[in-house]
Amino acid sequence: MSTDTTGYHHISTHYSEELEEIRSRILGMGSLVEQQLSQALKAFKSEDIELAIDVVSNDKKINVLERSIDEDCVSILVRRQPAAVDLRMVVAATKINTDLERIGDESRKIADMAKAIVKQHRLKGHPLSYDLIDNALSFGDDIVTMLRNALDVYARRDQSKAVDIVASDRKNDRRYKNILRSLTTYMMEDPRIISNALNVIWMMRSLERIGDHSKNICEYVLYEILGADVRHQKIAELSTEEKFPQH
Amino acid sequence: MSTDTTGYHHISTHYSEELEEIRSRILGMGSLVEQQLSQALKAFKSEDIELAIDVVSNDKKINVLERSIDEDCVSILVRRQPAAVDLRMVVAATKINTDLERIGDESRKIADMAKAIVKQHRLKGHPLSYDLIDNALSFGDDIVTMLRNALDVYARRDQSKAVDIVASDRKNDRRYKNILRSLTTYMMEDPRIISNALNVIWMMRSLERIGDHSKNICEYVLYEILGADVRHQKIAELSTEEKFPQH
Repeated sequence: MSTDTTGYHHISTHYSEELEEIRSRILGMGSLVEQQLSQALKAFKSEDIELAIDVVSNDKKINVLERSIDEDCVSILVRRQPAAVDLRMVVAATKINTDLERIGDESRKIADMAKAIVKQHRLKGHPLSYDLIDNALSFGDDIVTMLRNALDVYARRDQSKAVDIVASDRKNDRRYKNILRSLTTYMMEDPRIISNALNVIWMMRSLERIGDHSKNICEYVLYEILGADVRHQKIAELSTEEKFPQH
Repeated sequence: MSTDTTGYHHISTHYSEELEEIRSRILGMGSLVEQQLSQALKAFKSEDIELAIDVVSNDKKINVLERSIDEDCVSILVRRQPAAVDLRMVVAATKINTDLERIGDESRKIADMAKAIVKQHRLKGHPLSYDLIDNALSFGDDIVTMLRNALDVYARRDQSKAVDIVASDRKNDRRYKNILRSLTTYMMEDPRIISNALNVIWMMRSLERIGDHSKNICEYVLYEILGADVRHQKIAELSTEEKFPQH
């Protein structure tokens, strides 16, 4: 029975290449998912039903990719028995893989909602106000940026930026709640738009969840770097700087 | 370098006990989470704000438990380097652990919504119709049963019941959509209830997600038993029986 749990005897060029390959596959999955989200929002903005349909059908590719990356991770665990930071890297990769797949799911839902909203406009009229759509799109842009930054944090293993992103998620929650409040007011003022406003609400909900998943990605990067599980931990424990600017 | 990847040389009473300990910790987490969900729904049914507050504060325990189970899983991976079915068991446990924590999150949200709904009743009047509340509660009861069955599937490694539960999730989706449709109609008929009906919608959404997570648990059980990743796979590929009764 092998008592060596450090795993150092496994380190070889080939082994590090395998670990790098996993990181690069996660990043590839990340850009695919980021593209899905951007395209889904573009379909909403430009009322492009064809584009929305493309996003929905592309989601299958992401599901296949998730499975294949998970298999790679399990295979490296079995064959290489990584320890310490390498083990944390592989564990973090499987967790991030799941979050990316969920972001793909939410992007598909956004594309579905974009389709439904456009169809209802064309069929029944009662267009949503420009104000409302602008608010929704600007929230969407910020979530795309947050996801892009989270992937950047993963690529560079950037601890300080990871802490910033985890903290910024609270701002998203507030913003999401504000948008919900104004949507509720719109619905009360003009009940004819209720069912389409609900579609916008689902879209906002998906964006908020993508924000959560992007935060998760940063938490797993911190776990990989620090060896500590930072989920459910207070941000203040991770950083002594003031991380909650009041704006 | 050890080339033995079967892991059989690690099998010892102590090792099997460690694996069993993980399974039993997952089941313990499962009953805690199931209790949280039942209590959250009870708080809604009996308009019990105190109970809802208890559920919200109990969620912290579940987060701590998730972290601790994850640490056990990583520790067994490092020290025991399990292979084959044992490895799949540990991988499945970490995945199921995440789903259970998310079910805990959704149960906390249901308790939050129960609180908000009761407060709005008392403050503003405009009670929701009995019909609507009955529908919501009956969906809730069915989701509690689905979760309980999924945990039972995990405890008994019951392949055939796992397939049944995965298939039954489609029925939940249809039911959820029907409830949403009738909620939309209620809102259009009486715009004063919009903001409280939205609270019910969030609750239904959380229930639907708990159904999804229960389905995920069964898929990981199938992965553990069959060694195949059944996510995103067609149910028909897992079973030749007719799994979609038309009721």
